[in-house]
Amino acid sequence: MHPLDELIRLQQQAPGRYIAGTHPGYANAVGPFGGATTSQLLTAALQHPERLGEPVAQTVHFAAPIVDGEFELMAQPVRTNRSTQHWLMQAHQRGQLVAMGTAVFALRRESWSAIDAALPDNIPPAASVASFDAPQRPEFTRRYDLRYFQGAVSVTGEGQERDDAESALWVRDEPARPLDFTSLAALCDVFFPRLMVRRQRRQPMGTITLTSYFHADSAMLAEVGTQHLLGVARARAYRAGYFDQSAEIWSPAKELLATTHQMVYFKDI
Amino acid sequence: MHPLDELIRLQQQAPGRYIAGTHPGYANAVGPFGGATTSQLLTAALQHPERLGEPVAQTVHFAAPIVDGEFELMAQPVRTNRSTQHWLMQAHQRGQLVAMGTAVFALRRESWSAIDAALPDNIPPAASVASFDAPQRPEFTRRYDLRYFQGAVSVTGEGQERDDAESALWVRDEPARPLDFTSLAALCDVFFPRLMVRRQRRQPMGTITLTSYFHADSAMLAEVGTQHLLGVARARAYRAGYFDQSAEIWSPAKELLATTHQMVYFKDI
Repeated sequence: MHPLDELIRLQQQAPGRYIAGTHPGYANAVGPFGGATTSQLLTAALQHPERLGEPVAQTVHFAAPIVDGEFELMAQPVRTNRSTQHWLMQAHQRGQLVAMGTAVFALRRESWSAIDAALPDNIPPAASVASFDAPQRPEFTRRYDLRYFQGAVSVTGEGQERDDAESALWVRDEPARPLDFTSLAALCDVFFPRLMVRRQRRQPMGTITLTSYFHADSAMLAEVGTQHLLGVARARAYRAGYFDQSAEIWSPAKELLATTHQMVYFKDI
Repeated sequence: MHPLDELIRLQQQAPGRYIAGTHPGYANAVGPFGGATTSQLLTAALQHPERLGEPVAQTVHFAAPIVDGEFELMAQPVRTNRSTQHWLMQAHQRGQLVAMGTAVFALRRESWSAIDAALPDNIPPAASVASFDAPQRPEFTRRYDLRYFQGAVSVTGEGQERDDAESALWVRDEPARPLDFTSLAALCDVFFPRLMVRRQRRQPMGTITLTSYFHADSAMLAEVGTQHLLGVARARAYRAGYFDQSAEIWSPAKELLATTHQMVYFKDI
């Protein structure tokens, strides 16, 4: 079984109430990889018997570090309309809220479509880009094949400061796994914090809230299968201990699958 | 009293529990302007006796149209840490959820800072740009002085389709009002839906979820006072009845005050 499928194997206690757990394969420096928690929260809604349609948007608040072990997961459809459904998800551990999410699901139908976002120039084939490696790296980074061809982080933590934080990479689950909403939701948090790219040094930081918009439906994700995705990430502002970052996730056929945004806490040392 | 101050005048029933109401000055085509609801939800947290620090992020789900009149507003601090606090806000009308929000508040401290985002070239002075006007316009648009100098919407609804949806404008409350978090939260939703800019035609659409990141603190907002702000908005993808849009709100001194993102429903006609 793929580690992500182990991660999202929830024990249902009642409709929308589950026991979940951390997974050693998705450990970050402190607590789990945020994308893992994001995927579990989305799964709690996806597996709910009253679920309508597919995810269009998800927001996750990382309220406190989750410690290794079990936690309680709740997903509640708070408003169901004809073609849209709004969700509240909460994770509690030792009686305290550790994560909170909201989501919109929808029955989507064909419409006029277009893409305004532009891909980077000169994208090399994934096979020609080396996979990220570093002697000391959080375990979760080994669950992804990260092939940065622009704006990688310094392996030693002692690189030269850059003028911006733009990165571009080819990425997929490691080992490979057919793309679906649970893996896409996690991939939305796979981009290294932009401050690490901008300053090329290490300092304490962590995502405080993450919002992802899903442009694809499950048929488009199935078409991608186990191919690498193209990710592009940027920041806009860093000030008073917080910075934002935004990223796009493209299919190899140049469909924009998801756009994602987050606010990240950091501390100067 | 300024219409925005009337809008956010909540009747407290208990800590974090209020009666709020729609305001005729902030009416949209169907229900209230989303920015008005956003401002009311943020105010519910701002006025809570247990509030810690200032807003860093806010997400709002527009779950259903709010009908003219009163509704119940709830703000609950779901997790309070040493320097951060996570919030859940909900609005109910006639026993049904009509809006839901989450927020992060924080005590911020000085840090390394930078801005990666770039301002548009050739920004004209606000005084040299005409204010938006149209014979038929939602009432809330009269609460803002909107001076688009790039990517305006067609007044007749019969313009020529554009290659992208980028807009830039000078904007402030109308009548003028000193900037604070309640007005900034509303301004994050003041950008016309990008599809109207891209296609230069009218069709049914509405924001389903909005996320705003606040880079400024209240001292920076007070410095802006009643000056015009610079707004820049773009879209990334339109597909299967939904599109996303992102915007930046800059001070006249070229500080990035807020970045904001939303997912918008639309229907072809």
